[in-house]
Amino acid sequence: MCVSTLFAQSVTLTEGEVEEIIAVDNQGNLFGASLAQAEKELAPYLESGLDVPTPKDLAGGYTHTQHKVNYFTMQRAGLLFQITGKEAYAELIKTTLEKYLKQYPTWGRHPSEKSYARGKIFWQCLNDANWLVYTSQAYGSIYNWLSEKERKQFNEKLFVPMANFLSIETPHFFNRLHNHSTWANAGVGMIGLVMQNEGLIQKALYGLPLNTKTATDNDGGSIQKEGQTKAGFLAQIDHSFSPDGYYTEGPYYQRYAMYPFLIFALSLEHQKKDLKIFEYRDGVLLKAIDALLQQTDDDGEFFPLNDAQKGMSYYSRELQLSLALGYYYGNQDEGLLSLIQKQSRVPLTYSGWKSAIDLAKGIGKKFEKRSIYLSDGPKGEKGGIGVLRSKEHELIMKFTQHGMGHGHFDRLSYSLNYDGHEILQDYGAARYVNIHQKDGGGYLRENKTWAKQTIAHNTVVIDGQSQFDGKVKVADRIAPDEFVFSAENQKVQVVSAKENNAYEGVELFRTLALITDESFENPFVIDLYNVKLSEEAEIELPYHYHGQFMSSSIDLTRNQTLSPLGEEDGYQHLWKVADGEADQDYEQINWFDKTRFYTLNVASNKGDQLVMARLGANDPNFNLRNDPCFILKRKGQKGNNLMASVLETHGSYSTVTEASRNSYGNINSVTISFHTDEYSAISFTNKQDEEWTFIISTVDKSSQTTHEITIEDRQYKWGGPFALFRNDLKQ
Amino acid sequence: MCVSTLFAQSVTLTEGEVEEIIAVDNQGNLFGASLAQAEKELAPYLESGLDVPTPKDLAGGYTHTQHKVNYFTMQRAGLLFQITGKEAYAELIKTTLEKYLKQYPTWGRHPSEKSYARGKIFWQCLNDANWLVYTSQAYGSIYNWLSEKERKQFNEKLFVPMANFLSIETPHFFNRLHNHSTWANAGVGMIGLVMQNEGLIQKALYGLPLNTKTATDNDGGSIQKEGQTKAGFLAQIDHSFSPDGYYTEGPYYQRYAMYPFLIFALSLEHQKKDLKIFEYRDGVLLKAIDALLQQTDDDGEFFPLNDAQKGMSYYSRELQLSLALGYYYGNQDEGLLSLIQKQSRVPLTYSGWKSAIDLAKGIGKKFEKRSIYLSDGPKGEKGGIGVLRSKEHELIMKFTQHGMGHGHFDRLSYSLNYDGHEILQDYGAARYVNIHQKDGGGYLRENKTWAKQTIAHNTVVIDGQSQFDGKVKVADRIAPDEFVFSAENQKVQVVSAKENNAYEGVELFRTLALITDESFENPFVIDLYNVKLSEEAEIELPYHYHGQFMSSSIDLTRNQTLSPLGEEDGYQHLWKVADGEADQDYEQINWFDKTRFYTLNVASNKGDQLVMARLGANDPNFNLRNDPCFILKRKGQKGNNLMASVLETHGSYSTVTEASRNSYGNINSVTISFHTDEYSAISFTNKQDEEWTFIISTVDKSSQTTHEITIEDRQYKWGGPFALFRNDLKQ
Repeated sequence: MCVSTLFAQSVTLTEGEVEEIIAVDNQGNLFGASLAQAEKELAPYLESGLDVPTPKDLAGGYTHTQHKVNYFTMQRAGLLFQITGKEAYAELIKTTLEKYLKQYPTWGRHPSEKSYARGKIFWQCLNDANWLVYTSQAYGSIYNWLSEKERKQFNEKLFVPMANFLSIETPHFFNRLHNHSTWANAGVGMIGLVMQNEGLIQKALYGLPLNTKTATDNDGGSIQKEGQTKAGFLAQIDHSFSPDGYYTEGPYYQRYAMYPFLIFALSLEHQKKDLKIFEYRDGVLLKAIDALLQQTDDDGEFFPLNDAQKGMSYYSRELQLSLALGYYYGNQDEGLLSLIQKQSRVPLTYSGWKSAIDLAKGIGKKFEKRSIYLSDGPKGEKGGIGVLRSKEHELIMKFTQHGMGHGHFDRLSYSLNYDGHEILQDYGAARYVNIHQKDGGGYLRENKTWAKQTIAHNTVVIDGQSQFDGKVKVADRIAPDEFVFSAENQKVQVVSAKENNAYEGVELFRTLALITDESFENPFVIDLYNVKLSEEAEIELPYHYHGQFMSSSIDLTRNQTLSPLGEEDGYQHLWKVADGEADQDYEQINWFDKTRFYTLNVASNKGDQLVMARLGANDPNFNLRNDPCFILKRKGQKGNNLMASVLETHGSYSTVTEASRNSYGNINSVTISFHTDEYSAISFTNKQDEEWTFIISTVDKSSQTTHEITIEDRQYKWGGPFALFRNDLKQ
Repeated sequence: MCVSTLFAQSVTLTEGEVEEIIAVDNQGNLFGASLAQAEKELAPYLESGLDVPTPKDLAGGYTHTQHKVNYFTMQRAGLLFQITGKEAYAELIKTTLEKYLKQYPTWGRHPSEKSYARGKIFWQCLNDANWLVYTSQAYGSIYNWLSEKERKQFNEKLFVPMANFLSIETPHFFNRLHNHSTWANAGVGMIGLVMQNEGLIQKALYGLPLNTKTATDNDGGSIQKEGQTKAGFLAQIDHSFSPDGYYTEGPYYQRYAMYPFLIFALSLEHQKKDLKIFEYRDGVLLKAIDALLQQTDDDGEFFPLNDAQKGMSYYSRELQLSLALGYYYGNQDEGLLSLIQKQSRVPLTYSGWKSAIDLAKGIGKKFEKRSIYLSDGPKGEKGGIGVLRSKEHELIMKFTQHGMGHGHFDRLSYSLNYDGHEILQDYGAARYVNIHQKDGGGYLRENKTWAKQTIAHNTVVIDGQSQFDGKVKVADRIAPDEFVFSAENQKVQVVSAKENNAYEGVELFRTLALITDESFENPFVIDLYNVKLSEEAEIELPYHYHGQFMSSSIDLTRNQTLSPLGEEDGYQHLWKVADGEADQDYEQINWFDKTRFYTLNVASNKGDQLVMARLGANDPNFNLRNDPCFILKRKGQKGNNLMASVLETHGSYSTVTEASRNSYGNINSVTISFHTDEYSAISFTNKQDEEWTFIISTVDKSSQTTHEITIEDRQYKWGGPFALFRNDLKQ
């Protein structure tokens, strides 16, 4: 019998693709290596078979882990069967599925009641859906190899019931616009494609009728979005991605969600080619791959925006498929090949094979990261993130919509990286994923009480309260506004946004500029953060830095005993370590981390306070990292209050040479030189007596407008919303 | 004129050596590369010459830095002149020396009064001595190239006065047994060798008459050692190194001191061959090189014992000469070649050239580190350090003599490394070498108040006081005693020592065993720390761990406000974060760092306390790292109090795969199974119900003795001081 007709129903790898793959000798390429690796990894299971225990445990426990091993193993066995023709792989899948067939119908919902949507195989439907996404691939691989009788049994007694369980029996899970439900849509759709069950395929693509308004999930987020009129896979695509490919939950969850999006898309491309899924919404799925990769630092780690475990990177297994599909179905970006090379493994798909073939030809170049604006929202109308890059520096400003259940109250915050590590950090999530000691590896209480709060981010806090008073539903309703994103001029890159709803009677407007100038050894950051108040209020701007505090021009008094900074909104977790008061109109704060020194140069008001704090208070279970931060505090007056500063990276130090170079910054004054309702300007000088002025129009973002203002008898004239002037030069 | 006769007085590189070197083409080897690199680095100075400013600044300031540049540059110019024959290099030296000749006689002692021994060129004589060690090499390189008249001028007006200044005019500096004075001895001796001034050579080798008993140095250490009867270079060798090559101040300072020891030794080998300096004291200088390299972790970083800046490593410039000389004058250990390769540079000496030639031949293998005992004291009678190594683990137990002014009150402490990073740390010094913000880069107040104190180390503290009440002079008088060091059996390696003088009426006896057993995934540490008290006292045993605390079997109560743990002896710097009380006779403390989990399994007494603390209190200038520690506290009874535990490294976690494996340890009980004045035994079981008993005789360390004891009806019989039994096996 001809091998190639055995798996006509495969969703992952078609007959024609396999023929092409096996027609060449893949021994020397990465596909051959990945194949050999998979064969080696599966060999023990061919001997032992796979255990199918009665579901009982949570994540980390035996039954959970075993069912996970089962679906990963079956999926790979299917591909190995297709490529090598060895029936032992098909037998492994069949005998395992028979075990499920025998038991699944006897299982009720999982005994754990932790989830808002309990699964049968696992404690939550999400994992059951994972199982189905992988197992439907395995089933597809052996579908035609099975007898009709066997197929009928599996279809009717195992897979249709399972698809029904995940959809019509759990509609509040299936119809949700959320990464969890994407898995369900994909699983149901893929098993539908395998079984040629058009009903399931339609459910998967378009969802069930909507009627689940009141339910909430484990995080307290509402199940059905306000105004949600559609559900299913296409609605997930519509809703989850902005036109730029930004995923509304952030890169950490995008990494996880990309697999079901792409593997179902691949299945549809194979079996519903007329859908043109990779062209859907202007090719948003492929754009999303690039957007995701652009949201990584120099080490390939994703920016830890919203709920995110730090350290997750493009080396993640989940990215293998994204990279290969992105390469093959996209524009054959050779930069992706270099990332595939770094992964040292390709998926056993046609795109994986194509990538390996091209890599073997020596094609491939460094993946280019660039300054990029990624809008958020289905129409790109709900804010976004701006990433400015220059040399080793990487600035990420966040002004997206709330990011649903995984969102943080972090509008207009920014983080800054140097050479792949954080200078100013976003804390990420308070969670140790899959580590049992830490509440079973789930989200910790401190994720809500600390990590999501505004004070945990590098953005302004008003009167000690989080944005939107920490209420997700309110935050969900309205997004910040992008004002300017400009990266054409590598030397003066600007990102600017407004947020007028986070606090009643408060208008927040922040402009960040990443400046590269030959008078400075490194790019530096200008920060103009205007806080317009309808009445007096306390303004606090935290800086979550890393490393060792070195010195400050503000005299600090260290506390003899430590108390928390406050009682709620995250302040209860910060120890107040020291404080001091500005007595000049220019102050410096200097610290050291790894190999570099950093100086924040602040245009201060006399009476501004500097508070040094450290995380760790009210943390009974030692769940928080004990990171340091400092907070600039100002008594805000009615009207405009401009927090202006310049952050320098400078000098170097090595513990091997013990040579210290430029341990103090180069700037020696920072002044707010102009500030009205229409313009903000900051001027600063360096030790060589050079002077610069940066001006931004705060009302007119048109690049066509010409502006003209006079500051201290000097006339400034420019086109477009902003400009940087070097004052000591003739203009 | 023949190049080779021009530098007959060179101390670094002889005529014959140069002939051999230039006879071959060095372009392809590391010597050629190092030569080219040096030529490139010196090129600008051939244009500009070297400035000789009037001394004024401290370290980091212009005049300090420039004079340092001068001596480094002249020394290399000398070697380049010898090897390339280009007279421009000789001219650079001559013109620079002429500037010194003109000015030096007019300089008094440096205006800064910070040092106990003020220099002329620099703020301290140490740096003047550095200058002379390097410049005498440069001067030697051009000595015969100069006219007799020029030589006479330099000799009489510059170098003899300088040698006199550093010796007879500053005898309390010159005669000291200390790394600083080694530089002075070497400098005076080397310029003596160049000028053939036998008087200076004799002073250098044998010192001045001793009469400086009462002086003290900047650290408050006494200048003249009790019982010191000799001074000078040979006395430095006698005194500074143990027969094993351990340097009494520790590896950080040894790295620094090795240069004058070795460069003067090389000069003597060249010009006083009959001294057989490299064979002196059984070749202790060469042994010292190996001893130093054995005191590095997997990343090449020196163990931060005593005052030491962490991160200093064998990549340091100072090590270049040690590695090359160690290779050539030692046993041509090919492992040294691999370290030379890592340095990517060889010194421009004959040994550097020989190393490069052998490297080019492809000779070289991994430098082998081993478990090693390094005795301290001139006769090896003053304690020592024991390093136990197994797989990725490295345990360092310290029971040396005090280490003079740079010593810490750390007897019987240990530190533990895994894969090149610290699990249990030694804090090192409280200092940021050469960083101006931190008190000019010198030792910080907190070095004394924290880093030197006993609580800053992983060893027992009695009644909250540091060993010897923190008095250097008392500690200096008597050293701990090594009891057992045994590393022949890789599976059961033991280091054990006694300290009976640190506290009145207290006998401390610690045994650490590094066990490798197939029932455990990693080597683990057994710790038997007996505290024999003449009356009740409080026993505290701190653990300075890294990473995130995960969980403990002891319920912890976290403090709502933080206060320092005490008022002095280092306790004033620790915030008390949480505490709890043992309510079982077995407790576990579990934490995570980087990729691994760690569990301390403790045989506890009910009522023992666990205190969680964090460094940072009473630190007005933010000089301390805010590292965590926990402290086991026990109310000690009169008689023996055995603190017994087993520390496991286990499992793994990756933020990329998010897979957590064995996050809990494998041990599930630890008991003190036998404890008398003659034996200590600990028994422990694992989750597979296997049981082990480790016994040590606490009085008889002979390997010949046979012991026999009965524990719970089971008979244990063994030869030598200790044994590990697996109880569930037939014996």
